[in-house]
Amino acid sequence: MTSPDDLILVSVDDHIAEPATMFEAHVPQKYRDRMPRVVTDERGRQKWWYGDSPGRMLGLNAVAGKPREMYNIDAARYDEMRPGCWDVHERVRDMDVNGVLGSMNFPTMAGFNARTFTEAGDKELSLVMLQAYNDWAIDEWCAAYPGRFIPQGIVPMWDVDLAVAEVHRLAKKGCRSISFLEAPHAQGFPSFLSGHWDPMLQAISDTNTVLSLHIGAGFDLIQKPDEAPIDHLIILSAQITALIAQDLLFGPTLRQFPDLKVALSEGGIGWIPFYLDRADRHFENQAWLQNDFGGKKPSDVFRDHILACYITDPSGLDARHRIGMDIIAWECDYPHTDTTWPESPEFAWKEFQDAKCSPDEINKITWENTCRFFDWDPFKHTPKDQTTVGALRALAKDVDVTRMPKEEWRKRNEAAGIGVF
Amino acid sequence: MTSPDDLILVSVDDHIAEPATMFEAHVPQKYRDRMPRVVTDERGRQKWWYGDSPGRMLGLNAVAGKPREMYNIDAARYDEMRPGCWDVHERVRDMDVNGVLGSMNFPTMAGFNARTFTEAGDKELSLVMLQAYNDWAIDEWCAAYPGRFIPQGIVPMWDVDLAVAEVHRLAKKGCRSISFLEAPHAQGFPSFLSGHWDPMLQAISDTNTVLSLHIGAGFDLIQKPDEAPIDHLIILSAQITALIAQDLLFGPTLRQFPDLKVALSEGGIGWIPFYLDRADRHFENQAWLQNDFGGKKPSDVFRDHILACYITDPSGLDARHRIGMDIIAWECDYPHTDTTWPESPEFAWKEFQDAKCSPDEINKITWENTCRFFDWDPFKHTPKDQTTVGALRALAKDVDVTRMPKEEWRKRNEAAGIGVF
Repeated sequence: MTSPDDLILVSVDDHIAEPATMFEAHVPQKYRDRMPRVVTDERGRQKWWYGDSPGRMLGLNAVAGKPREMYNIDAARYDEMRPGCWDVHERVRDMDVNGVLGSMNFPTMAGFNARTFTEAGDKELSLVMLQAYNDWAIDEWCAAYPGRFIPQGIVPMWDVDLAVAEVHRLAKKGCRSISFLEAPHAQGFPSFLSGHWDPMLQAISDTNTVLSLHIGAGFDLIQKPDEAPIDHLIILSAQITALIAQDLLFGPTLRQFPDLKVALSEGGIGWIPFYLDRADRHFENQAWLQNDFGGKKPSDVFRDHILACYITDPSGLDARHRIGMDIIAWECDYPHTDTTWPESPEFAWKEFQDAKCSPDEINKITWENTCRFFDWDPFKHTPKDQTTVGALRALAKDVDVTRMPKEEWRKRNEAAGIGVF
Repeated sequence: MTSPDDLILVSVDDHIAEPATMFEAHVPQKYRDRMPRVVTDERGRQKWWYGDSPGRMLGLNAVAGKPREMYNIDAARYDEMRPGCWDVHERVRDMDVNGVLGSMNFPTMAGFNARTFTEAGDKELSLVMLQAYNDWAIDEWCAAYPGRFIPQGIVPMWDVDLAVAEVHRLAKKGCRSISFLEAPHAQGFPSFLSGHWDPMLQAISDTNTVLSLHIGAGFDLIQKPDEAPIDHLIILSAQITALIAQDLLFGPTLRQFPDLKVALSEGGIGWIPFYLDRADRHFENQAWLQNDFGGKKPSDVFRDHILACYITDPSGLDARHRIGMDIIAWECDYPHTDTTWPESPEFAWKEFQDAKCSPDEINKITWENTCRFFDWDPFKHTPKDQTTVGALRALAKDVDVTRMPKEEWRKRNEAAGIGVF
């Protein structure tokens, strides 16, 4: 392994800005007049609607290809995003040009934990739409390119029995991950500690599925000062992940479900050594609390269950042996602001070299740990020598990754009637 | 430097369980009948009272010398604590036997941020008592052993003008630090970002005093699950410190007061590289936010202002060069549960050796950074060759550090009518 071209990259955190047509092939006839739909307003902005409620922004944070100075303006129309945000064929070309073999995608219109459907009033309808969402994601998006996408689904949080049934239904379709709310109590649900989610966690364990908890939804766990700038939200969201780990480790969810696998998506890894030092010292020092970790230390139990996922994390890579070489996984985060696309291979390579990672360590981080954890084998579909960055990029020589000039973006935004920088 | 005996230890975080007589010499005659007082109840328990309100526990968490299995039971009487908790002569002997040259103490009965006085109704009286507290701490406790204690005071949070005046009054007495609330908004005060505290921060800057923010009081910034065990409180309290750093760094307090010095007391250090990586990456990546760090990176500004304090932190020591060799300071935390007393020299030495710290690095961490930051010179009072662990321990050969047998503690607690383990 001598250059970024030799990497094999499987990313466990990317995002789809779902196409307006996504529900069409997956909703039964009797519900079709009530499907979520994309509506263009009088100023040309496009937004998802579900029932009488405007939903999420179309392309929240979908900035890949945009100049950095324009990150403040969310894409308001499909034509303000790279087509790879919503079109699977274009997405695979954007993966190729970035040398990314495999990708797991989180929802946008549905919310990471299906909030769009959970908050709607008609639960019968919402279950239909949620299942249609999953069917589209797995049968249409992922199935279009076998060996390129790790299938992930969402569950109906409003009814744990329905969630159990959906976990089983999805597993039969080859789903490898459930995207869930990192801290259910952050949105008024019972916490992981409450026992409420135990049947679902059992189903996830039983089906060898991964519970993927993406940062962001739990941000309300922190009481910010009233005057806090937006920087707080962006910088501190990864600090929340330690709170989630604490809930799971001392909850004691991880000890209760010995086979449960949890991916801390976009959680970063640099906080882990400090947290585990503290947890182990606490376990030893506060013996009167009589915590039972089954003869192990808290850090051992953490490593038995967790996949720790990062986009860029120089300090974390330095401390990789304190984290655990078998629990670290790389992410791309296309098309969000934190993504390293389209220079992910060079970016990751430089961090690996700065941290003096060996080729074996690099492979663990960029694909081996992920493929083992998600029990997902891309080489069933693509010969291994055709999966490297160099091999994939050779397929995508004609893809234009030029960042659009700032003036061009300004014109588009002005035309769309949204603020300019 | 070849053994723990060669260390010089100055701790910036210890605690006093104040003696019942503390106010007597410092309260004017007309207020003496309204002094805070220690009352023994019918079961033999002793507690501070102020006016009609029972105050804090006498010896919250004062466990030095206790067997670990008994940490759950707070000392309920003076005679359940080591005399070093409240008697300055005994304290210096406990410092000597642990090889600790210098110590900065935080209040117990007053609260880290004078909460006892802030919450009381009569503010004229409370100012008298708060000033008496400071006079006792500086003129009586610290002055008893010149060169052994870094003087620290508290300020009246209920009136920022009074706080300014107290900062100046204390500075004239040689006070080197103000203990304040790590996140004022956690207790319903305006936040550091509000501008409300600016006159006080200016006074602290102008007098070359250090603002010391001890962990704990800001814990309510995190929304715990209802079912969270007590472990959450203990383990996560240091995670709060990153939130405090964020308030100060992006607030932008640290940029507003270029001379302000802030000690993050008991905040730990292992979280810092991850936080600073994230802050610097954010600063670069989210250029549209147009943050102005005066040509520096956020991490530079952090290092210009912060003293990062820890008791035990193996991962943090490994990452010391990412934190900054000039901003790390060691702490003892006598007599709390996290203390390493009476084996602090051996405990710290092992961590230094494990992390392969050089003698120069060790000196920076154990005393040089602290003495420079607090502008406090112990060698004016004690020749340097008499300040090492070995020299101090030679003075304290007769001090009994034997942990009292568990049975002895059980008897004491039963006699005091409090629960036993």
